[in-house]
Amino acid sequence: MPSKELLNISLPALKRLPVYYNFLKSQEKEGVETITAPAIAKALKLVPIQVRKDIANTGITGKPKTGYGIKELLRAIEDFMGWTNTYDAIIVGTGDLGRALLGYEAFKTYGLNIVKAFDNDPNKVGKLFHNKEIHHVDELETCCKRLDVKTGIITVPAENAQEVAERMIKSGIIAIWNFAPAILDLPEGIIYQQGDIGISLSVLKKKLFDKLNR
Amino acid sequence: MPSKELLNISLPALKRLPVYYNFLKSQEKEGVETITAPAIAKALKLVPIQVRKDIANTGITGKPKTGYGIKELLRAIEDFMGWTNTYDAIIVGTGDLGRALLGYEAFKTYGLNIVKAFDNDPNKVGKLFHNKEIHHVDELETCCKRLDVKTGIITVPAENAQEVAERMIKSGIIAIWNFAPAILDLPEGIIYQQGDIGISLSVLKKKLFDKLNR
Repeated sequence: MPSKELLNISLPALKRLPVYYNFLKSQEKEGVETITAPAIAKALKLVPIQVRKDIANTGITGKPKTGYGIKELLRAIEDFMGWTNTYDAIIVGTGDLGRALLGYEAFKTYGLNIVKAFDNDPNKVGKLFHNKEIHHVDELETCCKRLDVKTGIITVPAENAQEVAERMIKSGIIAIWNFAPAILDLPEGIIYQQGDIGISLSVLKKKLFDKLNR
Repeated sequence: MPSKELLNISLPALKRLPVYYNFLKSQEKEGVETITAPAIAKALKLVPIQVRKDIANTGITGKPKTGYGIKELLRAIEDFMGWTNTYDAIIVGTGDLGRALLGYEAFKTYGLNIVKAFDNDPNKVGKLFHNKEIHHVDELETCCKRLDVKTGIITVPAENAQEVAERMIKSGIIAIWNFAPAILDLPEGIIYQQGDIGISLSVLKKKLFDKLNR
């Protein structure tokens, strides 16, 4: 298992910040300029003290009565989350999910730019998906080193995920986002995040199955 | 927030079962017929007692020395997870991610069949994506009731997610898989699962950002 990375914020707080961000964006669209922690808490079914604590991570504190300036808070979240710094990434595996991620415009908001896609299927190599050419996975090392890419996305079948991760690390990748339903054995210091669509679906289906068959 | 659903298994155990399943599948492909809990634990960096406990949920216990029959265990996991029962689902929102999920073949393994897709964009309504016709979201209620669909997938922008969820529930949907980065306010008894691609990416990026800027 990958080692625990040191984060200067708790994981649940980190996961709530994008939710605040989306809510604040919708408020901004409606012309709202300031908002209090209790108002955010009420809208998102949280408690005000938690909202205040979460937001304090970004370095912003609200003023009495008026609360937070929405524009200022949005910018602070963007900066804190590192969204304003765009990172290049490569993706290995161009099946359904790989191609979807390749064309997923929303990644731009989060500052992620997928620059190259790789596959080992000779029928796919050389083809364009979402205006990006698919390269053979044998070119991974050369490409990553030349472009100095640090982030790799894995969308290959579970049984190939470990091998792909190892090739990525050899190519200079230090952050891996793995969508294969496999547990990877990674060296210390590699940043790891599971993108668990299949597992998420399994949990939903199991709950539904149990409910319908109770 | 949605109410806690009663599950007859802990959430972490439930999330590990698909991982065991994939590992066992790869072993089966290599011609392996039986496997012990310590061997599974070693391959997946877990401890044998945990593997035994997790697997016991499926009703299967290993034999001394030989362990589990792989075929039998695979079938038990499929049954326990409800993968052998295929459920129909509808999806609302046919942007990049919606279309990707619409064409994601792997859902069949998990017993999910997306039967209809909906959008409110008149330029999309009537078009075919992955051989499925896009319907106007106004037809949601009629379609869901006629087809008796219980599962709904939300892939609309965050600001529309709550409204879509409410329309789904009015249409008879009882299980919601939400990919919009929004916290939904749902009535008691609705099964809910967050498919948090954006949040997952945010966490990865934040770790990388902190590492590169330490």
